[in-house]
Amino acid sequence: MPVIHTHVSVKTTAAQREALKKAYGKAISAVPGKSEGWLMCPFEDNMPIYFAGDGEEPAAYVEVNVFGSSVPRAAWEQLTAAICEALDKQLAIRADRIYIRYTATTDWGWNGSNF
Amino acid sequence: MPVIHTHVSVKTTAAQREALKKAYGKAISAVPGKSEGWLMCPFEDNMPIYFAGDGEEPAAYVEVNVFGSSVPRAAWEQLTAAICEALDKQLAIRADRIYIRYTATTDWGWNGSNF
Amino acid sequence: MPVIHTHVSVKTTAAQREALKKAYGKAISAVPGKSEGWLMCPFEDNMPIYFAGDGEEPAAYVEVNVFGSSVPRAAWEQLTAAICEALDKQLAIRADRIYIRYTATTDWGWNGSNF
Repeated sequence: MPVIHTHVSVKTTAAQREALKKAYGKAISAVPGKSEGWLMCPFEDNMPIYFAGDGEEPAAYVEVNVFGSSVPRAAWEQLTAAICEALDKQLAIRADRIYIRYTATTDWGWNGSNF
Repeated sequence: MPVIHTHVSVKTTAAQREALKKAYGKAISAVPGKSEGWLMCPFEDNMPIYFAGDGEEPAAYVEVNVFGSSVPRAAWEQLTAAICEALDKQLAIRADRIYIRYTATTDWGWNGSNF
Repeated sequence: MPVIHTHVSVKTTAAQREALKKAYGKAISAVPGKSEGWLMCPFEDNMPIYFAGDGEEPAAYVEVNVFGSSVPRAAWEQLTAAICEALDKQLAIRADRIYIRYTATTDWGWNGSNF
């Protein structure tokens, strides 16, 4: 039950989102027990995002939410490196204009009932 | 202070959102102390959502956030059943392509001050 | 690492978002250790938002997420007052149609690694 929810200020193409999704799918395996088979990736693009008072340079806000009570810090570190690299490569968003917020929570619904 | 924040990959009509909002309004009463009178329902539609590597089949990501320190698990279970049923009925999104993430947190603002 | 993520039902202009961003930038200094230099402000507008069963009157849902383990309640209170005032002034959204959800969490990525 991992979700990687991407908000970016730039426009994206289907090919770029496909490449990001593939990169996320590989990266999520850094988190114990998670794989692309359970990964959801919503994308929101072309939205105004200010960072440090500036709304001109491309920026990204990514929320990574997983099912569970905790995740080793090293796993989040690996994800941060992979997500920043993918957003820079695909969308030319500089890593210092990206925030990624991580949460692990225990109440998730899927397929009509809860995990 | 419950919020049911719906993200779906398909387009929605005003009538469909109205029907979903009504279904959510009934369902939220499963959570002790909550009612439609305090329920907020933001809708985001027609957005790319990948699940299990696939971006073709309809999918939904729903965040249910309430004011409070905890909620009985049985209440979340009832909500999951009702939300999945409503999304399937109104938008033909299969329950196994829906994630619902639940949180209860204690800091909320409304009407100029905090609860 | 504060993020003020604004969702509003009304359309916004670049000038209105600029004014909101400025107001948020001033307001965030109420939170110990935070400043506009680290503030990210994603904006989503013109989206359907129901509140108390009504989808006609303007409404807003704001998520304020910061890095850290806790924040003094008084700081959140000041933010609520400032955010409600700014949304009313710029977008004519009444304070009693605004929810603001606050979280402080400890896992954040930026610039390729985690704080």
